[in-house]
Amino acid sequence: MFPRNAWYVAATPDEIADKPLGRTVCQERMVLWRDAEGQVHALEDHCPHRGAPLSLGFVCDGRLTCGYHGLQVGADGRTVAMPGQRVGGFPAVRRFPAVQRHGFVWVWPGEPALADPARIPHLAWAESPEWAYGGGLYHIGCDYRLMVDNLMDLTHETYVHAGSIGQKEIDETPCTTRTAGDEVITSRFMQGIEAPPFWKMALRANGLPDDQPVDRWQICHFHAPSHVLIEVGVALAGHGGHAAPDAVKVSSIVVDFITPETETTHWYFWGMARHFRPDDAALTAQIREGQGRIFSEDRAMLEQQQANLLRWPDRRLLALNIDAGGVQSRKVIDRWIAAERAGMAAPTAPTPTAAAA
Amino acid sequence: MFPRNAWYVAATPDEIADKPLGRTVCQERMVLWRDAEGQVHALEDHCPHRGAPLSLGFVCDGRLTCGYHGLQVGADGRTVAMPGQRVGGFPAVRRFPAVQRHGFVWVWPGEPALADPARIPHLAWAESPEWAYGGGLYHIGCDYRLMVDNLMDLTHETYVHAGSIGQKEIDETPCTTRTAGDEVITSRFMQGIEAPPFWKMALRANGLPDDQPVDRWQICHFHAPSHVLIEVGVALAGHGGHAAPDAVKVSSIVVDFITPETETTHWYFWGMARHFRPDDAALTAQIREGQGRIFSEDRAMLEQQQANLLRWPDRRLLALNIDAGGVQSRKVIDRWIAAERAGMAAPTAPTPTAAAA
Amino acid sequence: MFPRNAWYVAATPDEIADKPLGRTVCQERMVLWRDAEGQVHALEDHCPHRGAPLSLGFVCDGRLTCGYHGLQVGADGRTVAMPGQRVGGFPAVRRFPAVQRHGFVWVWPGEPALADPARIPHLAWAESPEWAYGGGLYHIGCDYRLMVDNLMDLTHETYVHAGSIGQKEIDETPCTTRTAGDEVITSRFMQGIEAPPFWKMALRANGLPDDQPVDRWQICHFHAPSHVLIEVGVALAGHGGHAAPDAVKVSSIVVDFITPETETTHWYFWGMARHFRPDDAALTAQIREGQGRIFSEDRAMLEQQQANLLRWPDRRLLALNIDAGGVQSRKVIDRWIAAERAGMAAPTAPTPTAAAA
Repeated sequence: MFPRNAWYVAATPDEIADKPLGRTVCQERMVLWRDAEGQVHALEDHCPHRGAPLSLGFVCDGRLTCGYHGLQVGADGRTVAMPGQRVGGFPAVRRFPAVQRHGFVWVWPGEPALADPARIPHLAWAESPEWAYGGGLYHIGCDYRLMVDNLMDLTHETYVHAGSIGQKEIDETPCTTRTAGDEVITSRFMQGIEAPPFWKMALRANGLPDDQPVDRWQICHFHAPSHVLIEVGVALAGHGGHAAPDAVKVSSIVVDFITPETETTHWYFWGMARHFRPDDAALTAQIREGQGRIFSEDRAMLEQQQANLLRWPDRRLLALNIDAGGVQSRKVIDRWIAAERAGMAAPTAPTPTAAAA
Repeated sequence: MFPRNAWYVAATPDEIADKPLGRTVCQERMVLWRDAEGQVHALEDHCPHRGAPLSLGFVCDGRLTCGYHGLQVGADGRTVAMPGQRVGGFPAVRRFPAVQRHGFVWVWPGEPALADPARIPHLAWAESPEWAYGGGLYHIGCDYRLMVDNLMDLTHETYVHAGSIGQKEIDETPCTTRTAGDEVITSRFMQGIEAPPFWKMALRANGLPDDQPVDRWQICHFHAPSHVLIEVGVALAGHGGHAAPDAVKVSSIVVDFITPETETTHWYFWGMARHFRPDDAALTAQIREGQGRIFSEDRAMLEQQQANLLRWPDRRLLALNIDAGGVQSRKVIDRWIAAERAGMAAPTAPTPTAAAA
Repeated sequence: MFPRNAWYVAATPDEIADKPLGRTVCQERMVLWRDAEGQVHALEDHCPHRGAPLSLGFVCDGRLTCGYHGLQVGADGRTVAMPGQRVGGFPAVRRFPAVQRHGFVWVWPGEPALADPARIPHLAWAESPEWAYGGGLYHIGCDYRLMVDNLMDLTHETYVHAGSIGQKEIDETPCTTRTAGDEVITSRFMQGIEAPPFWKMALRANGLPDDQPVDRWQICHFHAPSHVLIEVGVALAGHGGHAAPDAVKVSSIVVDFITPETETTHWYFWGMARHFRPDDAALTAQIREGQGRIFSEDRAMLEQQQANLLRWPDRRLLALNIDAGGVQSRKVIDRWIAAERAGMAAPTAPTPTAAAA
């Protein structure tokens, strides 16, 4: 249950730096590769000759070459050459639109004619020298929507991440959720609290005192089909919190691209875009390591939750106020799927509010 | 195919000393946990909020707390609290009767109203300072009834355990089998034989000579639903064997609690209660290590036997005289299952003859 | 989809030197064992007593003895003895004809009455002191016919084995394929090329110069049900190539016995019989190691090809001129299967032309 006419993050550019990569996105098995000019392409991972995966092959003269018997295809999926063969009548390999942009490789697993690169979310932080990004990739054994739920209800931090970023104020402070077109926004504002360790470090890094009360915010933005960008930060208390002037605050965006693989597995591209000390590579590495540890705690929980959902497939779950973010996000997803099935035009482009933040 | 209205050993107390434990008994997925007073409880391992396993949580103020978003349940399965929520209307979590007794945690996977703790077998050796117990737990990939068969026909020792406890006299000496209510007893008496190494050690440990002929016995007691207690021992020859006075004999009980997990897997709680040198902890450890090695030989055989039964599901097997213990035990099991299906009262309590031995 | 009335290689003699071996051939689970005289037998791997695998047992007094309770069967599958039992009425264990010959253990998984050992291919090189053989066994996760395809179209060497035996001349030189009865022969002759490293070594080993142009040949012989023997070699250019006198050439046979296990797995007995320096054991070991590395490259490709065929079960593949060897081999296999289903006599014995080479 996922929209197919949508842009998904399929890989990071380094994954296809040297050789093709086989990856399944929305149950479509693809090979991602780069031509001689470095442009990214995606084809069905299946050689028309004997069915070998093209991802076991290599790129030669800008053509994807099958590693079994040397059949060569171009970016459009047409066979260009094969030793000793006339290839005119060979069936074409199915093509998936693919674009490298903002530090990610995006693919469109559905109808190619509908794939408009202008609908790839604009990630301002990915293009700005004032921001730094670091992240990683996890393969996670659960429905991608469980990850959306997880990220749209951060009260879990108090429990799943009790040893790191969780603090009691999170699940004591109510959140508000609203839907704006194909975006869902869940916001939580904690006033006059003590900053947790990560933010104390960030305050110091920005030349701000770390021993004063702060206003902390968490603003989760779901964009269809399945991207979650979370604005997080602290400002010295009493200056307006999220709206405070840059001089008294420090902020980041937690980046989550959640790409369905099958009905019960997904690719989780996680990371943090930070708006302080962008040139500090050691800090980038340190944050990546911390996030990797934290998201592995989510993975453990989500995979066991998935196992339970398969164990009790008919059990109804609760949808509380804290679940509104996930519930409303699923409604957007369902609307996209319904529109796709009805053969209607694809929904309007998402408005990347977090990206513009 | 197992009775559900029955007490099964689900865990040893140390397994839930610090934190909850998830375990499947008779295809019911449970969380076992201890409240503030140390009392043991069992609930379905499923949080009513989002379906997360409660076994990933922790106990706080004597309540089982979900590790995902902090929902708290009491021993009766009712939700007691959750941050920011009114929990009055939350559905209850299914409860399974659970009791800690005789060094084991017992659960009743069936109808709670029928669960009478008085029907838990009385294990006199577990409460007596004259006895010592040591044991372990194996997860075994076969129908629990194959383990019952295995333990009710000890001629396999000559073959499976040729390198340790097996001796030719075992499969040369006929056994007798009888059913007494819900108990099945298979007995084998070997007269005037040389004691095998384990019993020579035990004789010496009891101040008895190890170089004289002995009378050896093996009396296997099956109790429904699936417990096997085996009286084993030797007496100096000619003093009455099993009935000889304590001064000329040495004895133990091989303890086997066999708890179905699925149709083709079970939890095997094995151990030995011994009636000599009860305070010798090093001896306990040594015996446990030896038993662990021996029972891993059974595991290897039984898992391959199970694979063969699945490979040839319609193949009829032989039921020889040596198989009478297993055959009669299965009849008792079938009677319990039939009674359960007919909605009849649970069978009468087992008479733990071995326990009383 | 495999013929059952056929001789397949099931094991190498050393695999059953000390104890019985359980192996599945054409979906038949067998135990292979050796009696007191060293003669090889095959029975269904299932004890009639309790269904334990006989392959977990041992041979005692020339009888196969079950390792669970000691039931003993003879070569004909009849129970001969069991401690404390009269075995006259015990059902017989199914027997599979088995023969050790030419350095392999052959079994006939089908109708025993049709099993004529004279139809086992005669491997002259296995009996001649002028030849040496070395090889290994891989369990491969694909339909055995994909391995036949692989070996009957060596253009894959240019791609799959680019780092070792592949050379551009292979896929640039056309091949010819013909069927002769139940044999399919694909031949490729490369004239006046530079010898690849393996053959340079072989030329030197035979006292021939390694810096002169050679004529190279690859003649693949498929024999039903699934054996592929490949004549390979080089001769100094201009002396007739494959037909050149022994003094100016060096040659080997690549040996491939491909035994179906299930529809999607097989046992691959691979090796090389070489016609030079037969007494050089170090050379045998070195060639075996090199072949093992090369065939593991095939394994990686074939298992992924199989995964793709299962992913797209209805996708039609191409059958090009280079695929003629595989296509014609499958026709022979299909003919054998059809004859078997029609209850007709087994096809005529294969003519092992490569073996006679």
